[in-house]
Amino acid sequence: MRRVNFDSLLVAMRGREVERPNRASGGTLSGHATGEPFEKSVYHILKQSYPSAIFKQYEFLNDLYTKNPKVISVRDRYALLDSPTVLFLISRGDKATKEWSLDHLFEEKQNDTADILFRKDGYYDLIDVKTRNIVKDAQAPNIISAYKLARTCALMIDNEEYDTFGMKYIGIDWEENGDNLRCTDAHFGDLFLANPDTLYINWSAGLQVQFHVCDLDQSWQGSREEWARVYLSMFVRSAEHRCQYMRDRFIMPFVKYL
Amino acid sequence: MRRVNFDSLLVAMRGREVERPNRASGGTLSGHATGEPFEKSVYHILKQSYPSAIFKQYEFLNDLYTKNPKVISVRDRYALLDSPTVLFLISRGDKATKEWSLDHLFEEKQNDTADILFRKDGYYDLIDVKTRNIVKDAQAPNIISAYKLARTCALMIDNEEYDTFGMKYIGIDWEENGDNLRCTDAHFGDLFLANPDTLYINWSAGLQVQFHVCDLDQSWQGSREEWARVYLSMFVRSAEHRCQYMRDRFIMPFVKYL
Repeated sequence: MRRVNFDSLLVAMRGREVERPNRASGGTLSGHATGEPFEKSVYHILKQSYPSAIFKQYEFLNDLYTKNPKVISVRDRYALLDSPTVLFLISRGDKATKEWSLDHLFEEKQNDTADILFRKDGYYDLIDVKTRNIVKDAQAPNIISAYKLARTCALMIDNEEYDTFGMKYIGIDWEENGDNLRCTDAHFGDLFLANPDTLYINWSAGLQVQFHVCDLDQSWQGSREEWARVYLSMFVRSAEHRCQYMRDRFIMPFVKYL
Repeated sequence: MRRVNFDSLLVAMRGREVERPNRASGGTLSGHATGEPFEKSVYHILKQSYPSAIFKQYEFLNDLYTKNPKVISVRDRYALLDSPTVLFLISRGDKATKEWSLDHLFEEKQNDTADILFRKDGYYDLIDVKTRNIVKDAQAPNIISAYKLARTCALMIDNEEYDTFGMKYIGIDWEENGDNLRCTDAHFGDLFLANPDTLYINWSAGLQVQFHVCDLDQSWQGSREEWARVYLSMFVRSAEHRCQYMRDRFIMPFVKYL
């Protein structure tokens, strides 16, 4: 089965320049918005290489429902995805799915799980692009809600669905270069190749798993089922630890004032 | 004692127009940055009315340390503030305070407690400006860390310091008006006039107390000491509730997979 060649994507991205956005604003060149042109570059390179298999997440759903005009109930539309786990990760809510029509297509949403979707022969890759101003962005970005990932793992186990999808991350480092931004390096990470015990959950930042793609551990040797169980074990331990931390820091010191 | 006249500030702000920032970017007109010109307006109006009493938070510290060139130890610099609670709220860390000099002034910091400081006759008002695109910003903004506020209340009680400072909020509603942004309404809220039991803590968004200034309860009739104790009681209850929620939502459903 032909999959995405991420190595050649990285080669194509390294050294690439894009026009600097918001030139006139004089604002700081940091944050999600500034790196957006690189996200678009990644999409266009992948789309050129795999024209019938690469989509934006919302584009894929629009395409799927458009090609199946007779499938109109929410349940039947969900069934088109043939994977309960991917369904959970990429579908829109019941109301939005019910109301979908050719005159009422999905648009891009901030909290969509993936920037880009690869689908071929029943296999899905959810691909997210993380851009980073190497001069300024020291803090690791939000990757995915740790709770959403826990529910994903539970679904994988419940449905014994271990090889129908992947979660892949592209890290784009960039710097200013005159009127342009230049990609100084590009990195690839496969979430399911990271030892779950190495993942960091930021409980006070929307429960987000946070990492720089270049720092993602890729040493996992176990099966995907083992990955799901080890992740869930780490998630529960981390939640218990966070509760204890909250007790020690936010409750105990103030009890004497009550 | 002459204090800030917030009513006349609101009158001066209502209907005011500012130049729309980031005109060329074509970006969405939402988020903190877009409302910034209104923050500047508020500062300039207050500075004109109370030229010797109004400062940016960092400006106040620069001014204080500049006027006391012989005070150089961290401990002595902190003592210049003559209020342990205000010290906690507005001072920079030990390292930054130690390294402060005329050649090494403080600059504005994202996580400073207040946008603007009023100081007169030993009394401080910490003033924060919250701007809101009335068409887009439905979600209540971050006001202050609930934990920082809990420590503030503990300090107030420990030092019996109840009338040396206030925490005031200005809410600026705005809409697009051609090339300008127009202030459609302005609101005032006094944190210590809000019944603490009405405050909402978003534990997964940096433990932030969140409210729209226009919605802030102003019905509190008790003393400031009672306020501090009722807030601490609410904070501890909220932390306990959050722990229980985490147990129910993030731990119990996944135990069967371990």
